[in-house]
Amino acid sequence: MTRETRRPGRTDELRVGSEFRYDAGRWARIGAPEVILGEGKSPAQLLRLLEALHRSGRGALVSRPTTAQRTRLVVARREGLPVLLLAGGRLARLTGPVADLSPVGPVALLTAGTSDIPIAEEARHVLKSVGVAVVTAYDVGVAGLHRLQRALRSMERKRPRVYLVFAGREGALPTVVAGLVRAPVVGVPVSIGYGRGGRGEAALNAMLQSCAPIAVVNIDAGVPAALFALQLLAGNRR
Amino acid sequence: MTRETRRPGRTDELRVGSEFRYDAGRWARIGAPEVILGEGKSPAQLLRLLEALHRSGRGALVSRPTTAQRTRLVVARREGLPVLLLAGGRLARLTGPVADLSPVGPVALLTAGTSDIPIAEEARHVLKSVGVAVVTAYDVGVAGLHRLQRALRSMERKRPRVYLVFAGREGALPTVVAGLVRAPVVGVPVSIGYGRGGRGEAALNAMLQSCAPIAVVNIDAGVPAALFALQLLAGNRR
Amino acid sequence: MTRETRRPGRTDELRVGSEFRYDAGRWARIGAPEVILGEGKSPAQLLRLLEALHRSGRGALVSRPTTAQRTRLVVARREGLPVLLLAGGRLARLTGPVADLSPVGPVALLTAGTSDIPIAEEARHVLKSVGVAVVTAYDVGVAGLHRLQRALRSMERKRPRVYLVFAGREGALPTVVAGLVRAPVVGVPVSIGYGRGGRGEAALNAMLQSCAPIAVVNIDAGVPAALFALQLLAGNRR
Amino acid sequence: MTRETRRPGRTDELRVGSEFRYDAGRWARIGAPEVILGEGKSPAQLLRLLEALHRSGRGALVSRPTTAQRTRLVVARREGLPVLLLAGGRLARLTGPVADLSPVGPVALLTAGTSDIPIAEEARHVLKSVGVAVVTAYDVGVAGLHRLQRALRSMERKRPRVYLVFAGREGALPTVVAGLVRAPVVGVPVSIGYGRGGRGEAALNAMLQSCAPIAVVNIDAGVPAALFALQLLAGNRR
Amino acid sequence: MTRETRRPGRTDELRVGSEFRYDAGRWARIGAPEVILGEGKSPAQLLRLLEALHRSGRGALVSRPTTAQRTRLVVARREGLPVLLLAGGRLARLTGPVADLSPVGPVALLTAGTSDIPIAEEARHVLKSVGVAVVTAYDVGVAGLHRLQRALRSMERKRPRVYLVFAGREGALPTVVAGLVRAPVVGVPVSIGYGRGGRGEAALNAMLQSCAPIAVVNIDAGVPAALFALQLLAGNRR
Amino acid sequence: MTRETRRPGRTDELRVGSEFRYDAGRWARIGAPEVILGEGKSPAQLLRLLEALHRSGRGALVSRPTTAQRTRLVVARREGLPVLLLAGGRLARLTGPVADLSPVGPVALLTAGTSDIPIAEEARHVLKSVGVAVVTAYDVGVAGLHRLQRALRSMERKRPRVYLVFAGREGALPTVVAGLVRAPVVGVPVSIGYGRGGRGEAALNAMLQSCAPIAVVNIDAGVPAALFALQLLAGNRR
Amino acid sequence: MTRETRRPGRTDELRVGSEFRYDAGRWARIGAPEVILGEGKSPAQLLRLLEALHRSGRGALVSRPTTAQRTRLVVARREGLPVLLLAGGRLARLTGPVADLSPVGPVALLTAGTSDIPIAEEARHVLKSVGVAVVTAYDVGVAGLHRLQRALRSMERKRPRVYLVFAGREGALPTVVAGLVRAPVVGVPVSIGYGRGGRGEAALNAMLQSCAPIAVVNIDAGVPAALFALQLLAGNRR
Amino acid sequence: MTRETRRPGRTDELRVGSEFRYDAGRWARIGAPEVILGEGKSPAQLLRLLEALHRSGRGALVSRPTTAQRTRLVVARREGLPVLLLAGGRLARLTGPVADLSPVGPVALLTAGTSDIPIAEEARHVLKSVGVAVVTAYDVGVAGLHRLQRALRSMERKRPRVYLVFAGREGALPTVVAGLVRAPVVGVPVSIGYGRGGRGEAALNAMLQSCAPIAVVNIDAGVPAALFALQLLAGNRR
Repeated sequence: MTRETRRPGRTDELRVGSEFRYDAGRWARIGAPEVILGEGKSPAQLLRLLEALHRSGRGALVSRPTTAQRTRLVVARREGLPVLLLAGGRLARLTGPVADLSPVGPVALLTAGTSDIPIAEEARHVLKSVGVAVVTAYDVGVAGLHRLQRALRSMERKRPRVYLVFAGREGALPTVVAGLVRAPVVGVPVSIGYGRGGRGEAALNAMLQSCAPIAVVNIDAGVPAALFALQLLAGNRR
Repeated sequence: MTRETRRPGRTDELRVGSEFRYDAGRWARIGAPEVILGEGKSPAQLLRLLEALHRSGRGALVSRPTTAQRTRLVVARREGLPVLLLAGGRLARLTGPVADLSPVGPVALLTAGTSDIPIAEEARHVLKSVGVAVVTAYDVGVAGLHRLQRALRSMERKRPRVYLVFAGREGALPTVVAGLVRAPVVGVPVSIGYGRGGRGEAALNAMLQSCAPIAVVNIDAGVPAALFALQLLAGNRR
Repeated sequence: MTRETRRPGRTDELRVGSEFRYDAGRWARIGAPEVILGEGKSPAQLLRLLEALHRSGRGALVSRPTTAQRTRLVVARREGLPVLLLAGGRLARLTGPVADLSPVGPVALLTAGTSDIPIAEEARHVLKSVGVAVVTAYDVGVAGLHRLQRALRSMERKRPRVYLVFAGREGALPTVVAGLVRAPVVGVPVSIGYGRGGRGEAALNAMLQSCAPIAVVNIDAGVPAALFALQLLAGNRR
Repeated sequence: MTRETRRPGRTDELRVGSEFRYDAGRWARIGAPEVILGEGKSPAQLLRLLEALHRSGRGALVSRPTTAQRTRLVVARREGLPVLLLAGGRLARLTGPVADLSPVGPVALLTAGTSDIPIAEEARHVLKSVGVAVVTAYDVGVAGLHRLQRALRSMERKRPRVYLVFAGREGALPTVVAGLVRAPVVGVPVSIGYGRGGRGEAALNAMLQSCAPIAVVNIDAGVPAALFALQLLAGNRR
Repeated sequence: MTRETRRPGRTDELRVGSEFRYDAGRWARIGAPEVILGEGKSPAQLLRLLEALHRSGRGALVSRPTTAQRTRLVVARREGLPVLLLAGGRLARLTGPVADLSPVGPVALLTAGTSDIPIAEEARHVLKSVGVAVVTAYDVGVAGLHRLQRALRSMERKRPRVYLVFAGREGALPTVVAGLVRAPVVGVPVSIGYGRGGRGEAALNAMLQSCAPIAVVNIDAGVPAALFALQLLAGNRR
Repeated sequence: MTRETRRPGRTDELRVGSEFRYDAGRWARIGAPEVILGEGKSPAQLLRLLEALHRSGRGALVSRPTTAQRTRLVVARREGLPVLLLAGGRLARLTGPVADLSPVGPVALLTAGTSDIPIAEEARHVLKSVGVAVVTAYDVGVAGLHRLQRALRSMERKRPRVYLVFAGREGALPTVVAGLVRAPVVGVPVSIGYGRGGRGEAALNAMLQSCAPIAVVNIDAGVPAALFALQLLAGNRR
Repeated sequence: MTRETRRPGRTDELRVGSEFRYDAGRWARIGAPEVILGEGKSPAQLLRLLEALHRSGRGALVSRPTTAQRTRLVVARREGLPVLLLAGGRLARLTGPVADLSPVGPVALLTAGTSDIPIAEEARHVLKSVGVAVVTAYDVGVAGLHRLQRALRSMERKRPRVYLVFAGREGALPTVVAGLVRAPVVGVPVSIGYGRGGRGEAALNAMLQSCAPIAVVNIDAGVPAALFALQLLAGNRR
Repeated sequence: MTRETRRPGRTDELRVGSEFRYDAGRWARIGAPEVILGEGKSPAQLLRLLEALHRSGRGALVSRPTTAQRTRLVVARREGLPVLLLAGGRLARLTGPVADLSPVGPVALLTAGTSDIPIAEEARHVLKSVGVAVVTAYDVGVAGLHRLQRALRSMERKRPRVYLVFAGREGALPTVVAGLVRAPVVGVPVSIGYGRGGRGEAALNAMLQSCAPIAVVNIDAGVPAALFALQLLAGNRR
């Protein structure tokens, strides 16, 4: 079941200074790209980890690097580490293979407003990092139905395997999309909006209550949504 | 400002047994129909109150009579009090003038699903009790956009002054409607759905977060929504 | 994009008495089975709807029929309507084609405890109604890891396309499963447990916070989880 | 129904750099002024959008510009773009026609305290931007009833079509006003107050629970309240 | 400080069967009447406790007896125990001295609606049981200001020492009263109302957020409100 | 009832620039000191208001001045306005009569920890500003019962009329105190503590649930607690 | 680490009809008694499971049997299965060894009120079922400190290894106890109390916020608290 | 019961300037180390308190010193006070005896991720300060089961008396650990994660809902967890 027994020769545990040992192959074993969470690591720890991965010939993505980490990565880049800040700094990418995948595509990304675009871009960069084709339609919310219908018609021609639909505020877009397309729809609530139900809470609950059969990830979870899409695509090949 | 000074001869306070005195003219003074909340009154108290109103030549609506009150009203009807149960028992009506209004119309009522119909019917009966024309389109949720668009096109021809839009679950319908019509839209969340955001919570928050300019009443507040619509229509006449 | 244009001859709107018109083809247009929500319909309305579907040569599933509806369906069955109660009465099935699908499989269903089984059975019956193969492992919670690992090893041999993982209480099972398998994992929180976080709330939030890339449906949403799985399988065929 | 078919010659989609296309006529089609949400746009994006609108001969309002956007707009103004910061910077206005309306009035604005004034001012500027007359009474909370009653008496003489009532803390003002006037009352909760129920939560819930028939918008939603009032006034003309 | 040392000869602990020993003098020591919570005691336990108190020459109040306890108390009364059900069964009283107080008065009780009366009656009976004078004005909510002002004018003549103000829904009454009277005002939220903020939640939060200096007790806490009023009156004598 | 009619000659409305008119006598009419909420006023507005009060011969307290307001008040003091920052800047006092009271005392103030002291100090300064005697015992939480009992014994000798008991965290102190003293106890939850129930939430709810008859004010509401105590003392004189 | 390898000969999986296989040794492997959750099992399933355990020579506890299960167990007892209902039916015990333990003791159980006793009794029966000595002090809440201090003095002489402290309402008892004893204190919130913070919510949060170092289990979790105590005692022997 | 009577000669109350008196022996009396909460004390107050403790020959821990306090302590150290910042500044230690304990060990500390390490380090330093042996396994979350099982096998050989298990996100680790070890498990939720259930809320609730018998402390409560462990160890010696 687990892939561990199938890759006996692979040493996945990387020593990061004296602090901790990183299980570099954890996600690879289930066919997911290497994604490191920025939160809770000092800039120095993160850098040592990326250097160790780079030395072992691997690439990686860093999700939500902190301000201090971003600053350190910019310096590291100047010092020669092939690391790039993406999606307005919400993601970093260490060049190199981040996963052992050959997923088909494409994945469709829609956002209800312009405020949802940064989270969608996180997903787009994760998908791009493993070579998946992406089609996007941004700012096509339900208050302008004709525009949305036009966008979906043009998207549907490319036969997306899965739709990732990003929406904050009232979070209605995934429900409306799921009533119009055949591929599975994953809703991604986005933390915009003030007042009651703001910060993505109303959107999350609306998606959980959807009268259409959609699945949901957490608020602002652009990276997990992309990873889920990858596993869904991987299933297609089997 | 208050109408009290303009109706000096009117005695509005009705004595109900020894328990309390009912301010029968409270709502009339602001041009709203007489609506009595069933909650918190014994069947005997409610009956005495309706009898007093009937004797004074007035009609009234009873919002959400309790089971015990409904049973008592059925008996009272047999005993000659002109009182009717409406909207599946969620409303009772004492025949007679319930308000001194000449409101224009019509009011449009839409529901997303069949489960929202009982609350919409509460509103319809309140509006009907004061002679306002109503146009309805039930079960036209956002997961079936073409059906909704057809229904709105036919409705719009009757030039509704206000839309009351009822929806539970993800509560997206008022937002979509407000993107397609010119008249003001009032969202009424309905307490259906299980799990997180159920019982109307997700719908309420989604409507408060709507990216379209709608106003909202509380969950299952079909009667208050109708009363608000009446005041809105009244404004048209001035 | 929508399939409406491709089925011009099909009349999908069924008249149900004078109350409302049912859009029978709504879900079929996106390739999902016909699922009718029991909530909010009178037993008579539901029966009229099922009879209309039966007359038009279609089958259907009824999700969460109420006690009154169940009683009526039992009578209807005696009167000749081919309708069956399943999953301990949480689902009813009207014999006949419920969807126009040829989905591959299998789908894996796991539950953490015995209390989660009824919700998993809802999903199993939906999948079975459209001919999808299902493999199950019930009562394999994370407090007994060795048993879970044994079950997964045996399941993995059948190469499931997607895992639906049902868990109440602390909701840890989908996360642990997603760390061990390659196919996408959908978490279904179940409304068991008392005290804080009970009724599925802790499980839902734990799944949304999962450190593994899983998607989630609402609490007790066995039927929507199955419908999402069907769309995911459908994608495989394209 | 939608106005799109009636304005065939109008090209509403504006290209904003390569990032996205803005649907400039979305709100115009339902008779609302052009309001752009500041949130989620970079200062450069916002500026490009305003310049495009200005070139096409339109005005607009910008709701809640961010600090960075405000700074950029001040510079833009010096460079010749006719853009003004209003309501203490919570709103910006690009000179030019923001809507194709001829609404009647006046609209009454009341606030319970001085802390509610900034949100009321947002509404006042939106209304003013389309030429609607406004009457105001600020700081007339329910703890000083005589003052409130005096203010309402003087207001009522101007026969407002709708009352927008702003209140934080316990949010009682809209309920009290609705018991004294005939026009519809819209409650706007304001995010003041510390401790439990603070930040407008108690006020919002109190307004939703009001024993008078009022409608509600979200916390601090001064702009949406004004837009709703505009649609209500528009109905008066039809 | 504690009164224990001043009443050395008093044996306060009553043995109730073998289950537990009741500290009968606990509240007496701080000058409060003997109030027994019904919740969590079997009818037999409650009866044994009342019999023990009666034998030792004391009276008592039972707060919120359960249905089973009420049934048992009715039987006990027929068997000779001087016990009475009050306030629609929400309170029971064992005749006999329930406290060693000589409090002055009067206490004013106001309710916003008729639904709040049962909770106010609980307080009235507690106050009456120790001989405190009470003045009441029921159903004088803020949507009918003139009626409220009339009621307060008449009450104020009796110079109440404290106002207990009961209100559900939006809970505005205590705030308005506190703006008009000089004695301290204690707000008692009442669990009426449906939808968001219902069951007293909006009222409680509104009272905590009041812009007037009021203190608050929990939802439906009529008995604790009366006990607090008693301690306040007791302070007057010192 | 209201004192307005008794003070016909007093002009209470102060003009503050062109912005708003301040109802200076609002609280005086119910016998409370003049307390101005800092929140929502610009430093300039606040200063103009204080100058107007000073010119009319009155004093006042400013509750929770903002940082900008505090800075402005320090400058104003140098320019000759007799205004003082107290309680670590959480309160400001304009010298002069702040209320027309002759309340008796003393009032007892207790805090559970050192973190609760700043809020208690707010209350102490309000009481001091109108000449009420105060006795304090700080840092006497329930985890050190003997120390608390010692403190209460010494306090009780001064016969406080009311206890204001400040506690964050688990909020147990008011309950324990109310079991040991005869005077009324008002609980003031304080916003300390991290994690679940932090920021005073657990303390507030614990006080509302107290098994002793206490009343409660909102989290951190030191000033309202003092105002409530003043009204309670005022009642003693009548 | 796990005990599985140490008990190779033991077959722990019991077949329960065709529905599921029960992992009878799961808890035994970590030294805990066999506790079966009643929730989610049909009476027939539960009975089959108990019969299988009985046949294999084991005893067991059933936590929270449902009404239907209780009825079935009473019948089963008459038919010869040695099964007993305890703690007012909240627990059932199948005679026979429920765990392979030799834990020392005693464990101290305290409750704040009489309403907390049923939950404490659940814990007492679990401890008793494995032969642990228990000392109890019921109804010793913090509003009667002297009584509590007396009870603790007498308890402390028996040198309890751990205190399980049960409290609803404001949940202050564990904090006060932890300030007076040396052994570890585990707080068990109990679901009593109405209004805000009722049903154990305030008590749970108060215990989590305790200023003394206590650990907590969920609301009404008498059985888990006893199991935790058993593991704590087991540690003493090692 | 309390140890006060056994240490008659010890003067525990330290005067800290004129502000307050610190009960230095409070925790010592129950066998816990001296831990001072940083929150709510000025840097000067904290320093005076540490100096007083140092003069009286005691050591202490300061939990969560504020930024200003940390700065002051660094200066104090240069001026000769033996005080050290630990755990990334989340803890400070004044050299000297912090408790009169001889606890056995070891205590096992596990974290699910690297983000949980800072809270675990708080616990480790508290335990170290009183000489308790600690074994750690960091970053062994449930998404990598084989690594966790390896870590536990190696830990179990050292026979820990208690496991403190730190986890944020979905908080599953304590449940999985408790299914594999015999010693008691205490769950410590950690405030990481964004979106719904973030900041430790999902983890706390999941631990309270655990299907294994674990006890829980509040979110980020590393110090209280260590203090609870100390009392548990102390019990072992008795």
